[in-house]
Parts: sequence; structure tokens; C-alpha cells
Amino acid sequence: MSQEKKNGTTSQDASATGLGRRRFLNTAAAAGLAGVGMAACTDKQAGGSSASGAASGSASAASAHTEANAGAEAAMHPKPGELDTYYGLWSGGHTGDVRVLGMPSGREIHRIPCFVPDALVGWGITNESKAVMGTKADGSLRYTIGDTHHVHASYKDGNYDGRYAWVNDKINGRLARMRLDYFVCDKITELPNIQGFHGIFPDKADPVDPKINYTTRVFCGAEFSIPLPNNGKDADKPEAYHSLFTCVDAESMDVRWQVLIDGNCDLVATSYDGKLAATNQYNTEMGVHYEDMMSAERDACCFFNVARIEEAVKAGKFKTYGDSKVPVVDGTKAANTDPKTALTAYVSVPKNPHGVNASPDGKYFICAGKLSPTTTTIELTKVLDWFDGKLAKLDDAIVAEVEVGLGPLHTAFDGRGNAYTTLFLDSQIVKWNIDKAIAFHKGDKNAKYVVDRLDVQYQPGHLNASQSETKAADGKWLVTGCKFSKDRFLPVGPLHPENEQIIDISGEKMVLMADHPVRGEPHDFVIFKRDLLKPKQVYSLDDSPLAVKDAKDCAVIRNGKKVTVKLTSQAPALGMREFKLKKGDEVTLILTNLDKVEDLTHGIAIPKYNIQFIVNPLETKSVSFVADKPGVFWMYCTNFCHALHLEMRSRMIVEA
Amino acid sequence: MSQEKKNGTTSQDASATGLGRRRFLNTAAAAGLAGVGMAACTDKQAGGSSASGAASGSASAASAHTEANAGAEAAMHPKPGELDTYYGLWSGGHTGDVRVLGMPSGREIHRIPCFVPDALVGWGITNESKAVMGTKADGSLRYTIGDTHHVHASYKDGNYDGRYAWVNDKINGRLARMRLDYFVCDKITELPNIQGFHGIFPDKADPVDPKINYTTRVFCGAEFSIPLPNNGKDADKPEAYHSLFTCVDAESMDVRWQVLIDGNCDLVATSYDGKLAATNQYNTEMGVHYEDMMSAERDACCFFNVARIEEAVKAGKFKTYGDSKVPVVDGTKAANTDPKTALTAYVSVPKNPHGVNASPDGKYFICAGKLSPTTTTIELTKVLDWFDGKLAKLDDAIVAEVEVGLGPLHTAFDGRGNAYTTLFLDSQIVKWNIDKAIAFHKGDKNAKYVVDRLDVQYQPGHLNASQSETKAADGKWLVTGCKFSKDRFLPVGPLHPENEQIIDISGEKMVLMADHPVRGEPHDFVIFKRDLLKPKQVYSLDDSPLAVKDAKDCAVIRNGKKVTVKLTSQAPALGMREFKLKKGDEVTLILTNLDKVEDLTHGIAIPKYNIQFIVNPLETKSVSFVADKPGVFWMYCTNFCHALHLEMRSRMIVEA
Repeated sequence: MSQEKKNGTTSQDASATGLGRRRFLNTAAAAGLAGVGMAACTDKQAGGSSASGAASGSASAASAHTEANAGAEAAMHPKPGELDTYYGLWSGGHTGDVRVLGMPSGREIHRIPCFVPDALVGWGITNESKAVMGTKADGSLRYTIGDTHHVHASYKDGNYDGRYAWVNDKINGRLARMRLDYFVCDKITELPNIQGFHGIFPDKADPVDPKINYTTRVFCGAEFSIPLPNNGKDADKPEAYHSLFTCVDAESMDVRWQVLIDGNCDLVATSYDGKLAATNQYNTEMGVHYEDMMSAERDACCFFNVARIEEAVKAGKFKTYGDSKVPVVDGTKAANTDPKTALTAYVSVPKNPHGVNASPDGKYFICAGKLSPTTTTIELTKVLDWFDGKLAKLDDAIVAEVEVGLGPLHTAFDGRGNAYTTLFLDSQIVKWNIDKAIAFHKGDKNAKYVVDRLDVQYQPGHLNASQSETKAADGKWLVTGCKFSKDRFLPVGPLHPENEQIIDISGEKMVLMADHPVRGEPHDFVIFKRDLLKPKQVYSLDDSPLAVKDAKDCAVIRNGKKVTVKLTSQAPALGMREFKLKKGDEVTLILTNLDKVEDLTHGIAIPKYNIQFIVNPLETKSVSFVADKPGVFWMYCTNFCHALHLEMRSRMIVEA
Repeated sequence: MSQEKKNGTTSQDASATGLGRRRFLNTAAAAGLAGVGMAACTDKQAGGSSASGAASGSASAASAHTEANAGAEAAMHPKPGELDTYYGLWSGGHTGDVRVLGMPSGREIHRIPCFVPDALVGWGITNESKAVMGTKADGSLRYTIGDTHHVHASYKDGNYDGRYAWVNDKINGRLARMRLDYFVCDKITELPNIQGFHGIFPDKADPVDPKINYTTRVFCGAEFSIPLPNNGKDADKPEAYHSLFTCVDAESMDVRWQVLIDGNCDLVATSYDGKLAATNQYNTEMGVHYEDMMSAERDACCFFNVARIEEAVKAGKFKTYGDSKVPVVDGTKAANTDPKTALTAYVSVPKNPHGVNASPDGKYFICAGKLSPTTTTIELTKVLDWFDGKLAKLDDAIVAEVEVGLGPLHTAFDGRGNAYTTLFLDSQIVKWNIDKAIAFHKGDKNAKYVVDRLDVQYQPGHLNASQSETKAADGKWLVTGCKFSKDRFLPVGPLHPENEQIIDISGEKMVLMADHPVRGEPHDFVIFKRDLLKPKQVYSLDDSPLAVKDAKDCAVIRNGKKVTVKLTSQAPALGMREFKLKKGDEVTLILTNLDKVEDLTHGIAIPKYNIQFIVNPLETKSVSFVADKPGVFWMYCTNFCHALHLEMRSRMIVEA
């Protein structure tokens, strides 16, 4: 055992913690890294690459798999008709939706469209969904793409309460909310003054009012710095570039406030007491070229004192930018030097960190080093002490900074004091003990904080464990999203799936249980017990003011060129067999599904009119279109409903 | 054992074949059927519903599952790193794409966007994909929705040859082709003169030239009858309504010819010798209301004599309609009464049949009865005999018409003489022996053609078996797509997934192995051995004439307002760190991925400009847009590629 301090980082001997293994894969994934910032890696650690690494990795995984306990194996493969025990909410990546999985089987049971149109449910086609997504002046959708990153759910008493989930779109800086009763997106907010926002996290309690022990805010960290306002005039003035941290109201989805900060925002975490939010930051240098973004030896985890920020807003101590009316307080370092009044606190962490995660005991935020082979453990009571003037040096809130392996990105927890960190470059999960890391950092050379390492295939990004981000972390299952799948699935051309691997963490050693392909690129996800949700299976007719409540109410109502078509569906017939329009009519079609039986969903399509959507039991939706093509158009049911499903049609006749 | 003939249909005793079991589910799915056409069902068959049917069904499935052989169980659940043994190509339903599965695990390894935009790959965003999808005069997409039904692949020597697959869009009457080297859609054809087309099937050989022992045509059956031309003038004249059968050239994807027929087209099948294609037909009555569509006691399976049709086209015996130049020959009954010259032959089958499937021995087409509880087996040599004037009565080509259960929809084969038919209303798969059904139909009362029945959950539509639609049918795996999943998965709100069930058919008894949820609604699929495909993992730079072959070639090339931006990506950098545009510029951005390593895909997004796409290794794509928003826009890599992925950006500066 050897121990050395370097830039405040303590490290265990590389061979003892297994850091000697490096993969041939790294020649691709880490190309160019040596020259630009991997200073913290010793030569010894970076050496030892092996061309046969992948093959031997597979072999060892297969052998570990055979040692798995039968209970875990059975849970992974539910018999026909058996239900999963956990839900997973998964970022859909560029599909702009959220995937709902049954876990641990990994079966996809639903997708919730948010930012991108969906031709099955008619998302972006119906008037109701267009109102949520946002339209341009001409009625067309403002955006049709997305890049969803992080999914998180609403809390109560430190656990999920089954009300809402949120997901962010990095490309266009939007936050979407999903209702977890109907599993639909009901609100989308585009954040002002920012570009490309990366991390989100709901709060878990109010910082001031102890009665509010549930989520009322969602925090959003903007990644890119842009000139404020971004009007094309200050593009060449680096000092005009800024990044903002944003607070959105969980109920109204209005933006409550923003904080101007130094550096950009990466991932976001919140404390269980509601007092602190934080964002990891790379590029505190505020560089616009990537070597500038890596010039500083340490970046920061920026903490926000939520109560003080809201007091400042109340006291009118804010600015606004451009057309936005959102109050922006000043959270830059220069403006927050006095701990007693500071809104923000920049705890230093090694350069270009990535994830920041809250431990389920509520004590720590853990930052993953990315370009540094370390994790940094920050004790939250010490950060609060600093804000109270009781801690002289902010960085004394760092209680551990230890080497774990190359490319640490994200951390999950098992509720038994262990953390699990993805090592992107090492293609490993490292399991490490938080208390022992703290002891090691304090100087206890015998504290073996690394508990286990597991090779994963290949280059893991996010990971999460069952209930990991709650006080009820149960240490049963871990999933890691590997960015490269290489040879792990049948070849399907140049675009490979990513590889999500399911790992049994119930024992001392991690056991790799299954590979699941997934379309790029999912980013983050949460896994929680199934009894936390109570979804509704059938709509109520009163959910829509437009509902056509009886087939007898079907009609074509004309007001000049404006025509309303009221229609019902009830297997195996639509409420009108045919109806006539005139070319040029401005039509709104309202469709109510009068079938009350669970799972009896109908669809409706109008050929050549680019209209398709489904109506679930007792659901009502509407679409508007101009009847610009004359002819006969068979509107047909597009969701198999009945033996006479194919015959379930209505003739829309558009007279020339 | 009792046996009776009714409308030409022979039936085994209901109790002997297990027809007595009916589910509570049928109260929903079959509501209204009794009044409109279930004449062939006896009271005995329709009775005996049981509210506890679902629960007991699950229990029996679970018990059968435990009896499955260990080899099948292991194949279903590949260990981490193990590959599947079969590919599955799956209709994506309304997502307008094709899913690629590894089988028998059922893992989704890819999606191939065809008819609907896809924000991951940039389908419908890049200029290359828009050219395939089709645009309006203003450059926007002609359609953004789809309703994919049937997927089939190209043949050689009666087996798949790995060149192409096709899928149809029912809503807008389109056929898409996919290359199976790169797993991408490369051509889409919109069929003229038709609306809502249901079934497709490639031919398997040329009817005349024996050297052409591979697919050169794809046949498409139009489901809806519309006035010809469909200009809004003849909407109220039922006699003006027609349906067409279409032949598309497999290479050029041009429409070769169409056939005007009586009735509509449902599913399509082709013979192994290339001489015959056929479509099942409901509504030979040509009704426009659904009770009219069911008034006739028998409908038809309409056969097409491919060689004669092509001779007729060559001889100029065709019409054209409206703007279309496609030759349309007359295949109506009235015009084809002389077998020696007939282009078509209408074999009668019980009312409103659905699927038609070719047996792997090349001898039979089997029609599933839908509203009739029967399958009809038609011997192809006898149909050819009729065309040759050697068979007096066309319906004598029917060699078996036997009861199998309620709601038969589709049939698959095991290559050992057995057929497997989905029973939508009975929620069952029935396994039956073709030779024994023929013997029974001939009068052999002791021929027990029903081999086995398996309850499935619930209401199965399509099914297919491994290699079923080839001469190499191997009888290993069967998958059925159940339209209702009800209680089989964790609840996810009103929209339930469908349930695809994987069944081991290697033994005498079928064994239900696994439930897989799937988003609605997949329709058809094919399953084939993995060694039939040889996909390419990396593009060639020469695949695109636009390729930017060296990072040094990156540039902004201005020609007045027209600007070409040439860009490369190579982890962890884009070829230009920044570039400037002027507000109002008409920009074409060309991006080549210079990374050659398999799986090293990059993405690019431009915030607020609604642009996102990926470039696979050595792939080139382009997008065109107007730089109408001034400001700084961080184009960033959207596909995790490297430890410095987040830093991989380029500043697009649009000067005001």
C-alpha cells in the first residue's frame, strides 16, 4: 500500500485497486486525452493495455453470471403473466420521449412523448398536444426535435410520491412535466436566457417551511454560456458570455428565478432538507475553445442557498434580460465573497467533473471527476456551516477526494454506505465505501475503500440503482448505460445500439446479469418500487370540455367555412358512417372514445391528410385541418379493437 | 366425433377440439358480432364464457412454462455478451419504422425510420432523407405520419437473400424499401389510384424466366375502394368505386402495373414458382357501410396470373387513370370468365377472410376465416390447372375448409406439415396438420387435424414462426402479437402495450415461454437465421458525393446569400471551432464523420434551429436552413463519443 497526495487528491495503490487494466477500446475513446488534461493519471495507471481485454472481459462476466443467486435470475426473467417489481423511467434520448420499463426484466411497457411528435398517440398532431408543445404563428410546431437527458420524479418525505416526473431537452432548453396517473406529458416550459441545459433535479422539501416536505421546485443547470442578450452583437466578447441556473415551479411550471454564475452547469443535485441545490461545473475558465475549457487545474461544484436566493428575489435584488421577465440574481464569485450573505458557494473539485449525486443518508454530494480519476465527497452540513460563517475555508467541506479509476462519470448508492461509480475510460463500475474513503482521505492507510470492480461492455455513462436517489435506497439492482456496444449484439449496420447492463448488487460482489440493447441515447433513468405508483387505466369523459358524450351527438356543425365535426368511436363503429365537407372548409374534428373497457383504445387516420391519433377509453382529442383535397377519404380505426376492426371506417367526402 | 358440412365447410366436434372455452374478454372484443355475421358459429361454441378465464389461463401457461426444455429457456435469455440466433424484422406500427430484434430474446437492437421523421438519425431533417421521404413545393415533408403493417424481405431460391426488406404504410398508400447492408430505408414509392393499402409480398421467382430465381417484384393490395379518379365528383356512385392490386419493381421501386378488381384487397401471398400472387378479400359486395361489407356468405381469395398480366400490359391492353401513367389491366370477374385468357381467378372463401399464407412446401395458400371459424386450404397446382383449362370448377382448388376456432386471422408453419393459426376471439393459437385437414375434408372422420391449442393473452392478430415464410421453415420459435395485454404488465395509464408472446414450437405441444410488451401496433414480422445477413459496420467515404474527406477541407463557402458550410467530426473535435454567418443566409451544412472506428457515431444539434442528426463512421449528411435567428448557437455533439464529448462543440455565430 502506498498513499500520496497530489492537488489535494489521495490515492490508493493502483495495483491494489485493480487500476492496471486498460482496454484496447481506449485507443479510440481516449484518443488525444493525454495531451489535453489527464495530468492526474500516473503512467502506471495509463499503461497495461491489452488487445484481448474485451474477450477476457466477456468470459469473466459469463462466469460471474453463473454464480448469481437463483432468485435474482428468476426476477430478471418473469414467467409469462408475472409482473415486474420495479418501474424504470428512462430518458428516450433524441426520441424526445420517456421510456417506461418494467424492472428488472428491462421490458419497455410505454413511451411518453414529450418534445418530439409521435404518430401513434398523435402527439404534435392533436390540438391538445400542440398546445403543450408550443406552436409558431402559423400553427406549426415550434420544434420537432429533442435531446432528452435526465428524468427525475417528484418527492415526498424523501421518497417518490408518484405525482410527477420531469425530463429536460438539452437542444432547445426545455423542461417537460409528466403526470404519472395517465402517463402523459402535460406541460413544457422553455427556459429564457440560456442555451443547451444539461442537468435537472427536483427539490425534496422546502428550505424554510417544514410542512412542505415534498417537491415544489425543479432546478435546471444551463450548460452553454451565451452572450446576454444573445442577439448576435456580443459574440466576440468572451466577458459577455454567461450561464444561468434556473428554478421552475413544480406546479405551475413557470420559471421562478435564475442565478447568474461563473462557469457552466453540468449535472444537478438537491439536498433532502431542501436547503441546498448544486451543479457540477466544467469550464469555470469560461473558455470557448476546448483546450481553454480544460486549462484550470480545478473546477467547481457550485452550491445554491435556496432560501437566500428567494429572499433576494423578494427584496427586488435582481435584473432581467431582454424580453424575459424572470428575475435573475447575481451568483458570481465576485458578488458572493461574504459567506453570511452569499447566495452561492463554489466548492473546488478536480478539473472538468461530470456527475454530482446525493447520498441516500442525506449527508453528502459526490462529484465524479471525469478528467480526474477521483470522486470528491462534500459534506453538506459543512457547506451550511460555511454559509453560517462557521467554516473558515469552504473547501474544508470536502471530506474525501480519492482515486477510483479512469473517467468517473456518475454515482449510485445501495443504502448500505456504498457508492457505485461508472468509469468511462476503464469500462468498469467501481463499488466503494464512503466512510472508508473518508477515513482514507483523513490519513488511515488501512482503509480499503474500493470494495469491488466489475468490467462492463463498454464505456459506461450513467448508472442508477433501485431507489438510489431516495432515502429508501434498497441496494438490489444496478443498471448502467454503456455508450458503446461493439460486438455485444447481432450486427445491424453502422448505427450500433447502446448497451444497458443489469447488475445484481444485493451481495458483496456485483454480478452482471444481462445485456439490453437500447437506441441512442438514453442518458439518465430512475428505478423505483412498483407500489409507489397508482396509475389510472381509463379516462373520465369530463377530462375534456369538448367530449362528445353520446353517439347521438355526432354531427357536422357548419358556421360559414368553419366546420366542427363531432364524432364518437365505439367498437366496431364510428358514430357517423360518412360526412360531407366542401373543399376549403376549415375543419375541427373532435373524437371521443365511448368505449369504457380498459385497454380498448381506438385510433383514427385520414389518408392523405396527414392525420393520425389514438383515443384511449373515454378520452377526447381534436384536430384542425383545411379540407384542401377533394375526394373520398376513408377514415379508419388504426388500433386493432374488435373482430370487425378492419370494417370500422367512416367516409369523409370532400366535395370539389 | 361428429362431422357436418355447412356452406362447404367441414367441422370437427367442438368439444374434441376444445372450442368450448370462451373468455370474458370476448364480451368486449366481439360485442355486436352476433347480429352481423357470426352465422357459422354454433350456440355451443359461442357459449361457456367464464369470468375466471384469464386467471386460469395464466396458471396453465405458467405450468407449461416450467415444462419447457432447458435449451429453449437458455436461448431465450442469452447470457451477457451472448448473441441471438435469429433476426426479427418487425413492423413499427404508427412509428412508421421497422424494428430489428434479436430473437428469441426479443431484444430490440435497431429501428429503421421509413415513413415518419426520426430525431435521432435526422430522418426527415437531412436533405438525403427528405429526398427519400418526399417533400411539398415549399420543401417541407409531404407526410409525417405512417401506419406500417407488413414487413417482408427479398428472396433467392426460396429463402431470404439479405438484400432488401419492404414495409408498407397503410394510411398514405406507400411502400418503403430498406437496404439490409446498412439497415436504412433508401426508397419510398407512393402508389397511384389507391387508398389505404394493407398487404404486401415480394415474389420469389420470375413466372417465366427460370434463371431469375430471386425477388424482382413486390405486390401490394389496396384495401379501400375509391372512385377512379378520386376527385370528389363520383362520391355518391358506388359503381365508380374500385380497388387495385399493384406490382412494384423491386430494384427501381417504380410501379410496373396495376390490376382493377372486384372487392378490396387484404393480405397478399406469392407462390414459390413465381407464377401466382393472391390477395384475400373482404367486401366483395363492394359495400360502403359495414353491414353491406358482410352481406355475402362467401368472399374470395383473388389469384393473379403474373405472366398473363405482364403479357397484357406488353400488348397494350390497359387503361390509365388521372395523372398516373401506370398501366391498369382489367381483372374484374366479368372480364375474366374464360380460364384460358383470364388474368385473375376468384376462389371463394367464407365471408370476410383475413390472412393468406403460403405453406413452405410450396403447395398451398391458406386463408384464415376471420368471421368464419375456418381455414381454407387452396392447392396451387389446381389453380394453375384452372388457368390452363384443366379444372372445370375453380372452387375445386379448395382441398380443405375446416373449423379451427373463432376468429382465425393468420397462419404460420413449422416445415413439418403443421400450420399455426391465431384465433382472435378465442385468444388461442391452434396447431393443425395440413394433410390431416385435407383428409378430414375429403371425408376421413378419424383424421384429427387439430394437434394442439395454446391460450394466449389476449386476442392475437399476427403470428409468425422462425423461417416460416421460406422453404427453410425450421419449426423452432413462434411469436404471436396479442392486441390486448390487459393485466400482463405493470400499469402505465390508459394506453396499454400490446403483448408479443414467444412460444417454443420445437415439440408436439406448444410451450409459452415469455411475454414481451410492445408499443402499438406492430402488425406483421418475419424471423430468420442470423447467418442470412452480412451487414456493413462502417460507411465508405465515397458513399456520398458531398463527403468532406479531410478536416483541412472544412470551410464556409459563400456565394451571395447561399452559403455552404463544410464540416468534419473526429473525436473529440469538430473540424471548425466556430464559423460566422449573416442573418438571412441560406445555408447548407455538410458534415462528414472522419472517425473510422466501428460504433464511433457522432451527432450534431443546432439549438433553436430545429436541427439534429447523427453521422455514423465515415458517413456524410447535409441539412439546409435559413439563418434567420441572430446570436451565438453552440452546435454540439449529441452522441456520446469520448471522455471530452461534452466539450465537442462548434460556435455558429449568426451576425445580426
